[in-house]
Amino acid sequence: MNRTALINLIYSKKSFLCIGLDTDLAKIPPHLLKFDDPVFEFNKAIIDATHELAVAYKPNFAFYESNGTRGWNSLTKTIQYINTAYPEKLFTIADAKRGDIGNTSQQYARAMFDEASSGMSFDAVTVAPYMGEDSVKPFLAYPGKWIIVLALTSNKGAADFQFFANDNHRLFEQVLIKSRQWGTKENMMYVVGATQAVMLSDIRKVIPDHFLLIPGVGAQGGSLDEVAKYGLTHECGLIVNSSRNIIYASNGADFAEKAREEAMKMQQEMAKLLATPR
Amino acid sequence: MNRTALINLIYSKKSFLCIGLDTDLAKIPPHLLKFDDPVFEFNKAIIDATHELAVAYKPNFAFYESNGTRGWNSLTKTIQYINTAYPEKLFTIADAKRGDIGNTSQQYARAMFDEASSGMSFDAVTVAPYMGEDSVKPFLAYPGKWIIVLALTSNKGAADFQFFANDNHRLFEQVLIKSRQWGTKENMMYVVGATQAVMLSDIRKVIPDHFLLIPGVGAQGGSLDEVAKYGLTHECGLIVNSSRNIIYASNGADFAEKAREEAMKMQQEMAKLLATPR
Repeated sequence: MNRTALINLIYSKKSFLCIGLDTDLAKIPPHLLKFDDPVFEFNKAIIDATHELAVAYKPNFAFYESNGTRGWNSLTKTIQYINTAYPEKLFTIADAKRGDIGNTSQQYARAMFDEASSGMSFDAVTVAPYMGEDSVKPFLAYPGKWIIVLALTSNKGAADFQFFANDNHRLFEQVLIKSRQWGTKENMMYVVGATQAVMLSDIRKVIPDHFLLIPGVGAQGGSLDEVAKYGLTHECGLIVNSSRNIIYASNGADFAEKAREEAMKMQQEMAKLLATPR
Repeated sequence: MNRTALINLIYSKKSFLCIGLDTDLAKIPPHLLKFDDPVFEFNKAIIDATHELAVAYKPNFAFYESNGTRGWNSLTKTIQYINTAYPEKLFTIADAKRGDIGNTSQQYARAMFDEASSGMSFDAVTVAPYMGEDSVKPFLAYPGKWIIVLALTSNKGAADFQFFANDNHRLFEQVLIKSRQWGTKENMMYVVGATQAVMLSDIRKVIPDHFLLIPGVGAQGGSLDEVAKYGLTHECGLIVNSSRNIIYASNGADFAEKAREEAMKMQQEMAKLLATPR
């Protein structure tokens, strides 16, 4: 999905909500455990109940890999389901935090983007910047696909290295400054944690137009209003993720309905924010 | 496998060789393609031919993920085969470069270490440090398991951020200084590329005793003698990886035999280096 299509989707749905599919067998409603693939059944029900309210879905790879081959199969079925049931209607993010030397990142890119090879075709993948340009470039070789580079994350450990600074700037700013040359605002986004909302004005000075993927609203304590205040642009420029607050809103038979209610609360807040002139 | 057992293995085999299983369907001998699982057949033959010469194997996850669920299954069979056929005789490294917020790294740790959950039990996993302490700590909750933190990598892009410096030191040194407090030399190692051999003396000042995993000898241009000169300790302290030079030594029916010959060349060099007093 290209940038124009994504922006159109956001304004037509009046939403910049991404739903994080951090699907955990230990947390999904117990009545689903009777299915052959409870994780896929859960994801499908969540997606069907919320697809009009969200612009994006973000399966978190760790939650699938912890179930081994079976989990990888649930993941594959989930992305295939989204692409088949809602073509061009949803932006999909492989939240995998990959990055390695060039010949290896090439293989990761095939995993995320090349359906003929891996069975999976996401629109975007999250990448870790530590290994630099050649670890990220192979993902940019796929036309129409995106990378989402970790810049400033939502967790406590973000302070350990991301704020490491020389006289001019901090590491996360160095990441923005260097990496914005590797691609364009048409194929690169950045991860900035919602808990770092006040830093967004500094970040917008370096990358005024790039989309930002913002995790950390809800369970991790970030505020949507704060994020919008400092991060929203005239083309939106934000995708805000919520995982646990939505997908685990209920543990009963009504889990999908309750997830829809939580998603709608966020979508309605977002509609107001998008309607506010900037 | 604990540190003492690893050191004993190194001195009994007179080898600190790790063989990287970067197994690519496009590069393995064509006669294997008739098997149901050519990747596993290839890995099994390589391991059987070289297990006396290597102390470690390092499947590179990207090469399995690019084949989707099928690839993840080949990977699972490979680690299960090593653990079953050569128990306590080989150190196993999940080369996955993982790292995310705490609740997510917990799931990655289950994927790599918890066989009951994922079907896989590696001794160690490579982790990316960018997200800091809480992204790495969940992996250290498994007794007897190791993390191998990216410090200074072998690729060109290493220069983009790893050398970002304040008045006192560079980012890769900051990573060493901070992260060495998260665990001990009993459960942490570091990745240092062979192409960075001259930096090893600086690195040894910060972490004199930790094991280092050294990729980049061979195809990437690093020299084993240089690495040993600056990095070897009185307890060895090194695991040197070679992938392409060994596993793709031949593309014919003799691939495993040729891999053994290449592995033996490296093992013999290593035996000499280990016998040199330090």
